[in-house]
Amino acid sequence: MTARTAPTRVRLKPEERRAQLIDIGLRLLTTRPIHEMSVDEVAAGAGISRGLLFHYFPSKRDHYVAVVRAGGRRLLTHAEAPEEGTPTERVRGIVDGFVSFVQRRRSNYVAVVRAAAGGDELVLEVFEENREVLTDRVLEAAGVHVPTPLHRLAVRGWPAMAEEMAPGATDEVVTGPELVDLLVGGLERIVERFAADRR
Amino acid sequence: MTARTAPTRVRLKPEERRAQLIDIGLRLLTTRPIHEMSVDEVAAGAGISRGLLFHYFPSKRDHYVAVVRAGGRRLLTHAEAPEEGTPTERVRGIVDGFVSFVQRRRSNYVAVVRAAAGGDELVLEVFEENREVLTDRVLEAAGVHVPTPLHRLAVRGWPAMAEEMAPGATDEVVTGPELVDLLVGGLERIVERFAADRR
Repeated sequence: MTARTAPTRVRLKPEERRAQLIDIGLRLLTTRPIHEMSVDEVAAGAGISRGLLFHYFPSKRDHYVAVVRAGGRRLLTHAEAPEEGTPTERVRGIVDGFVSFVQRRRSNYVAVVRAAAGGDELVLEVFEENREVLTDRVLEAAGVHVPTPLHRLAVRGWPAMAEEMAPGATDEVVTGPELVDLLVGGLERIVERFAADRR
Repeated sequence: MTARTAPTRVRLKPEERRAQLIDIGLRLLTTRPIHEMSVDEVAAGAGISRGLLFHYFPSKRDHYVAVVRAGGRRLLTHAEAPEEGTPTERVRGIVDGFVSFVQRRRSNYVAVVRAAAGGDELVLEVFEENREVLTDRVLEAAGVHVPTPLHRLAVRGWPAMAEEMAPGATDEVVTGPELVDLLVGGLERIVERFAADRR
């Protein structure tokens, strides 16, 4: 087998090509900020022309919004509560999935979800939607069926705290499970604090 | 007095001009992401040429790093503990200053400190330094004189949580002072949780 300098162009179905271009975007984002990601690089990674990329994504922005959306969806797939269990066990499932996702994909995560949030209305919207889904999941798992706005606000803060702490949580400082305990404990106290507001 | 279409160029001392160009940058950042801020606009705002701007800041990046640094310094000036008081009162002073700063300057804050953190090594460094200063202040105010790495990690998460919650804290949901109470309570529990580790 000889060394290749460029990937060979392979014929893919439209939805496969789209998924491939999003994957390449997610991979490139681990090495540079989103606004420096070039459409040419993405196209080259797939072995297609710039023009063909624009067939799948009408603009550079459409591509990167799709990348951010895909990154958010992957995160949400990980941060899910088990169907059965006590409220603590179910909240723990969400927090554990979130923390391990962020720890495994630190630079990717920061690039996609966080840094992007400052730059573009549409990306901010995707980011906000993800935060809302996480908030709903935690409240549902914790057994708060009619959350007050204050419940929502208080619970909304935890992913920000978790994403700040996850990268610093090396085994010498705190193990992954210990960090998860800490965050779950904090969330439970927040929920208890507003227990009187439940209707 | 006739209407002016451009500001008149006024002779300023070098350090005044530098400060002015940083101020203009901070103001522009409330309307657009940092990587879209143009040096021409900044120069025009000061009524000077692009060339003269580069006399004060060798590159566009030097200017925006200075802007981010100045934004961080303003935040730190607000988030200070009173010299006297109980640990709770002193922690409260820091949290209160932080929350009210973020609430008053939402878009500016997000643009400068948070979104910027994803894009540039030097900006990330400034951001990390500010987080460290805040962490030190809270631990000192709380009376933790020999913090463990876990103390530091746990306390480091609060500004992220606070900046996430501050913009959503409208008076119908939770007043500023109530939000501050909530955050101070959380910080105190974190510090207590590790009290056994104190030496």
